[in-house]
Amino acid sequence: MLILVANLGSTSFKYKLLDVSGDLQSPDVRPDARVLARGAVERIGDASTSRCEVTIGEYHEVSEMPVPDHGVAVQACLDQLTDPQHGCVKDASEVAAIGFKAVHGGRKSGTFLVDDDLLEAMAEMNAAAPAHNPPYIAAMKLLRERFPDLPLVAAFETEFHDTIPEARRLYAVPQGWRDDYQVQKWGFHGASHRYIAERVADLLGRNDARVISCHLGGSSSLTAIQNGQSVMTTMGMTPQTGLPQNNRVGDFDPFALPLLIERTGKSLDELLTALAHEGGLKGLSDRSSDLRDIEAAAAEGDEKSKLALSVFVEEIRRHLGGMMVAMGGLDAIVFTGGIGENSEVVREAVCDQLQSFGIELDSDRNVNHREQAKQSGGEGSLQSESSQVQIWVIPTNEEWIVAKRAKQAIGQ
Amino acid sequence: MLILVANLGSTSFKYKLLDVSGDLQSPDVRPDARVLARGAVERIGDASTSRCEVTIGEYHEVSEMPVPDHGVAVQACLDQLTDPQHGCVKDASEVAAIGFKAVHGGRKSGTFLVDDDLLEAMAEMNAAAPAHNPPYIAAMKLLRERFPDLPLVAAFETEFHDTIPEARRLYAVPQGWRDDYQVQKWGFHGASHRYIAERVADLLGRNDARVISCHLGGSSSLTAIQNGQSVMTTMGMTPQTGLPQNNRVGDFDPFALPLLIERTGKSLDELLTALAHEGGLKGLSDRSSDLRDIEAAAAEGDEKSKLALSVFVEEIRRHLGGMMVAMGGLDAIVFTGGIGENSEVVREAVCDQLQSFGIELDSDRNVNHREQAKQSGGEGSLQSESSQVQIWVIPTNEEWIVAKRAKQAIGQ
Repeated sequence: MLILVANLGSTSFKYKLLDVSGDLQSPDVRPDARVLARGAVERIGDASTSRCEVTIGEYHEVSEMPVPDHGVAVQACLDQLTDPQHGCVKDASEVAAIGFKAVHGGRKSGTFLVDDDLLEAMAEMNAAAPAHNPPYIAAMKLLRERFPDLPLVAAFETEFHDTIPEARRLYAVPQGWRDDYQVQKWGFHGASHRYIAERVADLLGRNDARVISCHLGGSSSLTAIQNGQSVMTTMGMTPQTGLPQNNRVGDFDPFALPLLIERTGKSLDELLTALAHEGGLKGLSDRSSDLRDIEAAAAEGDEKSKLALSVFVEEIRRHLGGMMVAMGGLDAIVFTGGIGENSEVVREAVCDQLQSFGIELDSDRNVNHREQAKQSGGEGSLQSESSQVQIWVIPTNEEWIVAKRAKQAIGQ
Repeated sequence: MLILVANLGSTSFKYKLLDVSGDLQSPDVRPDARVLARGAVERIGDASTSRCEVTIGEYHEVSEMPVPDHGVAVQACLDQLTDPQHGCVKDASEVAAIGFKAVHGGRKSGTFLVDDDLLEAMAEMNAAAPAHNPPYIAAMKLLRERFPDLPLVAAFETEFHDTIPEARRLYAVPQGWRDDYQVQKWGFHGASHRYIAERVADLLGRNDARVISCHLGGSSSLTAIQNGQSVMTTMGMTPQTGLPQNNRVGDFDPFALPLLIERTGKSLDELLTALAHEGGLKGLSDRSSDLRDIEAAAAEGDEKSKLALSVFVEEIRRHLGGMMVAMGGLDAIVFTGGIGENSEVVREAVCDQLQSFGIELDSDRNVNHREQAKQSGGEGSLQSESSQVQIWVIPTNEEWIVAKRAKQAIGQ
């Protein structure tokens, strides 16, 4: 059984084709071995031609063609996958569903077949996820028309956080705002944190561990996991809050806005746009939204870059502490995402001086992780012998979660 | 040497007259014994008469008179204090200064003599502290005219937090916003947290303890104190952020605002006003902004009140954990403020299930604290014998700090 997992941007379509046949709970299942193909179509809607890329096993193809919309992009993808010579699928009908890593469904948090009500629920949240929801809605509508027999499944990023207790979900807003406008801490990166929850249970050989999953990348969030379930997370009503992101502010005081409106002469929308595009690591460093650039500049003594790195780490630690207290203790920290997997500097700084909480990073294992984990697909543990808390790097696999959820949603 | 410490509202003037003569660092100094008088004038500017209340030692007087402005209120206060029969001061000139527990001076964080530049700096922050700054500015201007020989001193609530490291002060906002608009985490309740820092050092007999001061009351904040200095606090650019307050939201996602504007039809100002007046414990409980009412209702099974209490406690714990990690450990937790001093329910819930961090509350000592601390002015420790972290209740004394700061500011 094949699921095409789609990751949409307003002008892009990235996908992986996964085989989700058989019993997926078996410990022998290796998610990486289930990826039959992956590809990307860029510059969709552009007047000129688009680059359509696909990798099927050893075969890699890049073609240029006009791709006016996401429907054409999906058709191009299916054509490549079913190509008689290089394809991996005999007939497009073998693709059982397209699974979308959808962002914000508000009242619809879970994994659902795409229908009118679902699209309406997503549209209600457009203002809370303006970069994500509108392109998904547009593409889903188009694909329903173009491929009426192909089930479309939305696996929302909020779903994994549905288990967070109410007392950690609510903002102290006026009564009624939660029911009427879905104002609560939803949390995001659910597919990634769920993958970490499942994988760390395998690696630790227990389901009852208290884990903090640190998804650190272009966008970042922490999630506290207890008994395999999310019990706290850093993002809130929108994916803008929580940790500072590459170019987004993270937690911020909304009561600063009237002063900024008065002093800058800018509108609320302009200020929020600035906070969402000129803030985060970019705003702090005055240099780059890419942590690699910032680490390099900090290493050369650039003060703003050092400060950007410190703010990022302090915010991770602040949330880490809150989660430790929420769970009454900690068994494992997991680093994932582009920064989590690759930045020994951030991992070291996050774990610094936490011996009194049983957290001890082994500096050598941390620095040499990438080299040493080549045989284990990037996975490895970094704690010292005496550390009570395990410290892991685990590459995440969001598509695997979306594919499994989609399989379940179509009842197979 | 006498300092009149003033606490202003837009229509009220509360004060204490303190004697700050001699060496105030001596361990024999008892701040409570230094209060010579206290009083309050209400309904200032009201068309009818105002109630002017004063307590001098055993003597208590209430009079009614027209009080059109804060200048008349201060004059009435000075008249009462210098009354030949019941007063405690021979001549108004014995009052060396009026010290104001001022809120937000932005670029002027510290304790300063009130001058034009200071008033301008406060006015620049009006939009960030709309309930506090404007009445202070108006009253200070008036008092400068009316009492030109009486030094006015503003001791800002942000001052104690000036020692917070930059990496915990900065929001990840666009570059320039900090310098141009003072957008950073300022922190408030500085006089209270400073008093706790000083007092806990006395009680523990050491200056190097890692302490979390929990000021819980009508408005609440936590401050992490290391070596007697603030190193982290929960309030941010404005006093609206951090913990949920009696009727204010606390931490909130500003990116929810466009959705709320769209869905409610309200303006930004209307929404922020709702968040600042209909949120917090009031919004959550749908009942009261007073924690005592909420505790009573929760005890009778009211679900919303139980939830309000839980959200409040979870947020305290979240910040507590962040501060523990920031300091790499913890030596003492201090509860102060109306809720911190009086709610055994909140104290118990905050400390629940934290044994693995060395935090163990003795339930009996917690419940019986008020009774047992009668001889010690409300002070007492509540940890169990085996607790590694000390847990204290210490009534705060903000006026004592303001008076001492004012004495220093006038160079005496």
